[in-house]
Amino acid sequence: MPLDDSLLDMAVPDLTQFHRVRELSESLAAPLSPEDWMLQSMTEASPVKWHLAHTSWFFETFILEKYIRDYKRYNEDFNYLFNSYYVRIGDMHPRASRNLISRPSAAQVLEYRHHVTSQIMQLCAQLDDKEAVEVAQLLRLGCAHEEQHQELLLTDIKHALFQNPTGPSAYTCPALPDRVSWDNDAWVEFDGGIVDIGADGGEGFNFDNEAPHHQVLLKPFALASAPVTNRQYCAFIEAGGYQDPRWWLSDGWEKVVSQNWRAPLYWCGEGRDRTRYSLFGIESLNPGAPVSHLSFYEAAAYAEWAGCRLPTEFEWEYASGKAAGQGTQLTQSGPFEPQPAVFERDDMCHQMFGDVWEWTASPYTAYPGFRASPGAIGEYNGKFMSSQMVLRGGSCATPAGHVRGTYRNFFPPAARWQFAGVRLARHL
Amino acid sequence: MPLDDSLLDMAVPDLTQFHRVRELSESLAAPLSPEDWMLQSMTEASPVKWHLAHTSWFFETFILEKYIRDYKRYNEDFNYLFNSYYVRIGDMHPRASRNLISRPSAAQVLEYRHHVTSQIMQLCAQLDDKEAVEVAQLLRLGCAHEEQHQELLLTDIKHALFQNPTGPSAYTCPALPDRVSWDNDAWVEFDGGIVDIGADGGEGFNFDNEAPHHQVLLKPFALASAPVTNRQYCAFIEAGGYQDPRWWLSDGWEKVVSQNWRAPLYWCGEGRDRTRYSLFGIESLNPGAPVSHLSFYEAAAYAEWAGCRLPTEFEWEYASGKAAGQGTQLTQSGPFEPQPAVFERDDMCHQMFGDVWEWTASPYTAYPGFRASPGAIGEYNGKFMSSQMVLRGGSCATPAGHVRGTYRNFFPPAARWQFAGVRLARHL
Amino acid sequence: MPLDDSLLDMAVPDLTQFHRVRELSESLAAPLSPEDWMLQSMTEASPVKWHLAHTSWFFETFILEKYIRDYKRYNEDFNYLFNSYYVRIGDMHPRASRNLISRPSAAQVLEYRHHVTSQIMQLCAQLDDKEAVEVAQLLRLGCAHEEQHQELLLTDIKHALFQNPTGPSAYTCPALPDRVSWDNDAWVEFDGGIVDIGADGGEGFNFDNEAPHHQVLLKPFALASAPVTNRQYCAFIEAGGYQDPRWWLSDGWEKVVSQNWRAPLYWCGEGRDRTRYSLFGIESLNPGAPVSHLSFYEAAAYAEWAGCRLPTEFEWEYASGKAAGQGTQLTQSGPFEPQPAVFERDDMCHQMFGDVWEWTASPYTAYPGFRASPGAIGEYNGKFMSSQMVLRGGSCATPAGHVRGTYRNFFPPAARWQFAGVRLARHL
Amino acid sequence: MPLDDSLLDMAVPDLTQFHRVRELSESLAAPLSPEDWMLQSMTEASPVKWHLAHTSWFFETFILEKYIRDYKRYNEDFNYLFNSYYVRIGDMHPRASRNLISRPSAAQVLEYRHHVTSQIMQLCAQLDDKEAVEVAQLLRLGCAHEEQHQELLLTDIKHALFQNPTGPSAYTCPALPDRVSWDNDAWVEFDGGIVDIGADGGEGFNFDNEAPHHQVLLKPFALASAPVTNRQYCAFIEAGGYQDPRWWLSDGWEKVVSQNWRAPLYWCGEGRDRTRYSLFGIESLNPGAPVSHLSFYEAAAYAEWAGCRLPTEFEWEYASGKAAGQGTQLTQSGPFEPQPAVFERDDMCHQMFGDVWEWTASPYTAYPGFRASPGAIGEYNGKFMSSQMVLRGGSCATPAGHVRGTYRNFFPPAARWQFAGVRLARHL
Repeated sequence: MPLDDSLLDMAVPDLTQFHRVRELSESLAAPLSPEDWMLQSMTEASPVKWHLAHTSWFFETFILEKYIRDYKRYNEDFNYLFNSYYVRIGDMHPRASRNLISRPSAAQVLEYRHHVTSQIMQLCAQLDDKEAVEVAQLLRLGCAHEEQHQELLLTDIKHALFQNPTGPSAYTCPALPDRVSWDNDAWVEFDGGIVDIGADGGEGFNFDNEAPHHQVLLKPFALASAPVTNRQYCAFIEAGGYQDPRWWLSDGWEKVVSQNWRAPLYWCGEGRDRTRYSLFGIESLNPGAPVSHLSFYEAAAYAEWAGCRLPTEFEWEYASGKAAGQGTQLTQSGPFEPQPAVFERDDMCHQMFGDVWEWTASPYTAYPGFRASPGAIGEYNGKFMSSQMVLRGGSCATPAGHVRGTYRNFFPPAARWQFAGVRLARHL
Repeated sequence: MPLDDSLLDMAVPDLTQFHRVRELSESLAAPLSPEDWMLQSMTEASPVKWHLAHTSWFFETFILEKYIRDYKRYNEDFNYLFNSYYVRIGDMHPRASRNLISRPSAAQVLEYRHHVTSQIMQLCAQLDDKEAVEVAQLLRLGCAHEEQHQELLLTDIKHALFQNPTGPSAYTCPALPDRVSWDNDAWVEFDGGIVDIGADGGEGFNFDNEAPHHQVLLKPFALASAPVTNRQYCAFIEAGGYQDPRWWLSDGWEKVVSQNWRAPLYWCGEGRDRTRYSLFGIESLNPGAPVSHLSFYEAAAYAEWAGCRLPTEFEWEYASGKAAGQGTQLTQSGPFEPQPAVFERDDMCHQMFGDVWEWTASPYTAYPGFRASPGAIGEYNGKFMSSQMVLRGGSCATPAGHVRGTYRNFFPPAARWQFAGVRLARHL
Repeated sequence: MPLDDSLLDMAVPDLTQFHRVRELSESLAAPLSPEDWMLQSMTEASPVKWHLAHTSWFFETFILEKYIRDYKRYNEDFNYLFNSYYVRIGDMHPRASRNLISRPSAAQVLEYRHHVTSQIMQLCAQLDDKEAVEVAQLLRLGCAHEEQHQELLLTDIKHALFQNPTGPSAYTCPALPDRVSWDNDAWVEFDGGIVDIGADGGEGFNFDNEAPHHQVLLKPFALASAPVTNRQYCAFIEAGGYQDPRWWLSDGWEKVVSQNWRAPLYWCGEGRDRTRYSLFGIESLNPGAPVSHLSFYEAAAYAEWAGCRLPTEFEWEYASGKAAGQGTQLTQSGPFEPQPAVFERDDMCHQMFGDVWEWTASPYTAYPGFRASPGAIGEYNGKFMSSQMVLRGGSCATPAGHVRGTYRNFFPPAARWQFAGVRLARHL
Repeated sequence: MPLDDSLLDMAVPDLTQFHRVRELSESLAAPLSPEDWMLQSMTEASPVKWHLAHTSWFFETFILEKYIRDYKRYNEDFNYLFNSYYVRIGDMHPRASRNLISRPSAAQVLEYRHHVTSQIMQLCAQLDDKEAVEVAQLLRLGCAHEEQHQELLLTDIKHALFQNPTGPSAYTCPALPDRVSWDNDAWVEFDGGIVDIGADGGEGFNFDNEAPHHQVLLKPFALASAPVTNRQYCAFIEAGGYQDPRWWLSDGWEKVVSQNWRAPLYWCGEGRDRTRYSLFGIESLNPGAPVSHLSFYEAAAYAEWAGCRLPTEFEWEYASGKAAGQGTQLTQSGPFEPQPAVFERDDMCHQMFGDVWEWTASPYTAYPGFRASPGAIGEYNGKFMSSQMVLRGGSCATPAGHVRGTYRNFFPPAARWQFAGVRLARHL
């Protein structure tokens, strides 16, 4: 019996993908100067240079070190500087001090990247069949890992440049279609019942946190056809949403008061003078684009105010099967900001994969029977399963093709620097 | 058709319960001095005096103010001083400064208590039928609320007296049966399937967070017959559990390192010299008693080390139907510390209601269709549904009769000052 | 040749003074409840109970332990609990946790006091001549030490009760003469030259930081005849003094901005509605009384705004020889707050010893040739000679007779909870 | 009557000095990359780029804006970004965020520098006589200001590169004479009496804080002939100096404990394995070089341990008249680290101007009659006259010719990142 093609695909290292991923990172970094590459505006964020180096360290540590006999590390110091959190690999540079790594220089980090890329290429030409299967898997993981860092590179540099009072632009704004949009307030209904959740490992790549495949019981529910737009979110602000504790979780209200939250991150001004900081500099607000840079607390408060709720991650995943097309995802040319959609009146959910991540009502926990991968690679996901919330979908900064219906993103509920928005849900 | 008796019960204020509850608070406080009543050792904890006053404020605010026409508050300042977190009632005294309330004095707070108690009694004698139903409900809520504060009073004063380097005792140790116990390492198996979860409102009191009643799909699982004992937990410590990041969630490991955790809270010494601070002062460790004063992180790390996991709150609730008897709960005479159990070899779960709260794997979130009660009373539970974990069962400090199978307790994952332990679970 | 009388006095323990001092402490504490005695509103302040115990610990540690053979400490724990900062004596309870000492109780601390007092009395009856001289000196030091704590007891409890939003009073306001005062804006001129500074040890008690006696060269200068009054300070506020960085030292301006300083500590309201919190509760501002509860920064800013400067401690000490009478000092009956003075138009400095401490321009440093006393008692003063400013004079909370011309008080420049004000100086 | 030459010098802008100063800054920065220029390792330190820009802003703000009619600022944003603390000029970028200024780039800042330099040159060619006198003075101030920033540039980049775990070097170590040195433990005695202190404004430049010239009365004293060496300081460490609170001021001991100080900043290892981080990377300790990177607390503790004391700034200034030659100061070629001296046995003080700043016992306060310069330029010195200590002399990082006998440097007592050491004093 012949092998299933997709399984065959999984059995050999996908060097085309590998090349594409490595190039995208470098092309995102290219318009930024070595000085921009140094910026770190908060502990949670990392400098561009560090993202570029760490993603190479990942391939070096989990593939080159293991599969090349007597492999000599490119630079011993890099194992300390560019380890993120893999305690089983060894000690690491403190996260808050990543902005103090002027050495190695930008040029040296690019050299390191090219060295790792080329070593991987050479290695893949020499693997026996068993190794090829293993390396193919690790390569896919490394590419998925690097794609995640591509998104962080964008959100981190956005946050960092925003601290510069001159409002600098990271990229040149591409010419985008001038869409006249209306707010899509249709609802899509779902019956619920016992539904399948998670990745079954049968085809394609998935992270360990998407498994095991299992069943969940859902009550009938409805999901908004589209994410909440800037225009809709403005109504919440104008209605005094940020002044009224009724809509807020207690922890969220504490943030509103202590951090003086008055609007989503990056918004400035009020009423008609509202602007927002984008990767193109300071811009006027696009009313029809999905609202982004919300914390979970803001998403939940908006939903409460609107008399609705957030979907659970299971409702979202189940509904994603009925999604119409995709939203905007990241390519080499951007677009770097969420875009308004032109909708047809259909009975479908729109923009589910792209534009903005969607906060769900689900805390990030293990699926029944979850086991982290063995060894240091198992530190990838499982150890973060506390005090974070699941986001689903993908954003304008998510590399095209990176996400899928079972994909689970996660951030602490107060995090605002991601392209994260909200899609409403309600019970039927 | 005649009314169901239990519903009838619910329709008239239960003054017997009210009296019992009010008296228990005062009897727990009685052995402590007015100076002890002032202690507040951390922001999360409150002084005894504050617990006594706040629970009275609750009855005054939600019943007396509403049902007595032209009710004049006992003291206007108390509405500011003794509001805990009900923002819709008005401003409140900062939580961290509750230890600065030397005025009103202990004696004045007791007077306030007696005033409120007697006003409630008088009010209940004058209610019309409709009001009686409402007040009966609020009275039950107020009693449940005060019972929760009785438990906090004990855990807070334990934490506060522990800060005193002389290791003072709060209570005289009662004579307890000298049980020779073995570690019950039996497992009880459950089939799972679609199971009923939550309170259906049909009978008895429940908090709003236990509703709505709904179905959940469970895979087959097993629950340990008994909670982990001090003896078993010592093995984890001796095995280097607090030195090995493999067992820990990332946030938990951060605590281990930054707070220098080496054993459960209140444990001192090592090996055979281990002692622990209790409400009776410093004592030797009781090997057969359930381990308590664990954080969620420690509970989860222990489970990981033991090759098991924590139960979900749904598994726990479902299994609680198969529980053998109760554990130790609080009465006027204590016992104030978890007790070893004498087990029969049966196919049952033991000590599920008492001795120690059991951390579950479930973050504290809303049940499908949850709506908080309207008005300020709705701030009771719902607004805390983020960044906390559910505990189930009840402890030696939980007033007898307070808990039930659907009861959901919740604390942040790093909290250690509750009588919280761990019961293992695994998949079948 | 007969001995000088004053030296003779120094050679025998002054038990009359000892008794007077011990009684004043207890009489200041008496109107306050055991619960009030627990209050500690900031790390720099201590509870009343702690002051009462610590001053007894001082006598026990430095006299009883040394001069009574095989002396057995009253309670071993007290050596840990009530040591303030004498590292050579041993470990001590953390300063910020003094509010957690509910045990020993107020009553037990009073018993401890009485024990120490009576032991000292017995000891003094049995000393040989050589010991008598030594004990007489230590007793004087212990009394001076306790008098300092009497002032702190008052300023600490004032700060603590002020945190209670109900504005409680510590003491009943005594009947005070209703003085109609004018602002004394006369200047007293001094020639300067080489002047004598410091205590020469010839007679009377002094702290080690007042020695050695030495010479200082002063330029001609003038000192204001009286300290700045509330009325005068209001003019600074109305003139926008707290909004204009020109008048402020950089560190001071940082405090103004970050702590939102708008008036002296304890002042509330604006313009004609100004009130202030006093030990008698909330009162209207007394325009003719010296302004108090200023930080050094405020004193210096006021002087800068007024086109003057603060005096150096040497100018102040030299001028104090030309002082007319004393200001208000503390007796058992108060008065607990600075009082307006009725001035004669004379060429004298008024209110130099009492009412308010006067911030000087002098940082607190060692006099040339200063040596701290040997042993633990040497930790009294010298080790604090950095980052503090000298205050001179004495206040309404300084026990009568405690201060003298050479007396050096010292506090960090941002401290505001002392009765500290400002007297202007200028060059001639 | 002909003008005194030195006064004549003061009357025309010294463009030779100006050029020399501007070039030195750029030559110090040249070996460092644009990425190195971004580093800021603590709030008190600034990035190289910021130093280069701020010193240009100073000339632009205080000269170009005032003397060029209708002067248009080079870039309006720079007035916000590169103002340090001149509140009268306007708002400014938060100090702690100077590491977030990737834009303007290094190249743009150099352009800005060249623009300002050339504008100053053009301006000076066109001044009338009155303006020339004023600009000459401001130019001298601006040069002195930039020289101070040259020293900070070196100490700040040293601190920043030290945070990089790879121990990078900033500069190539120059070939230095291999001096075999002995510890010069001779004392130089001084009679004291009434001595002249401060700058009399008669000739040469001085900062406002060096005036007015006045008299001070000194007792006879002796000063060590040379600063304490690394070898001598090691003896203090080996004797347990960092473990014994007896030697330490209370604030200093608090730092020792909380910051875990065990040796001067930049020292690593123990005993014979001691190394230190320098601007050339990690080096072995030079036993005969003056110890540096001490806080005031360490300097004072060393002196106490040695049975001596720190000199007052007046003793130091008076003694500086009897100094033998200078120590090592900064030129374009370094040397960037303190050097051992070869002494003759003479009755002189050595290395007083260079190698290491010498902590004095004197808090930084105003001289009698001090008035800050009018306007924003008056914010240069006076407003910092609290909570800092005076250092005298100059260091290996002080540009040659910058210091003089009356020069007063000042830093907070806990600051360790300057080239600051200690010279002992004692009373005679």
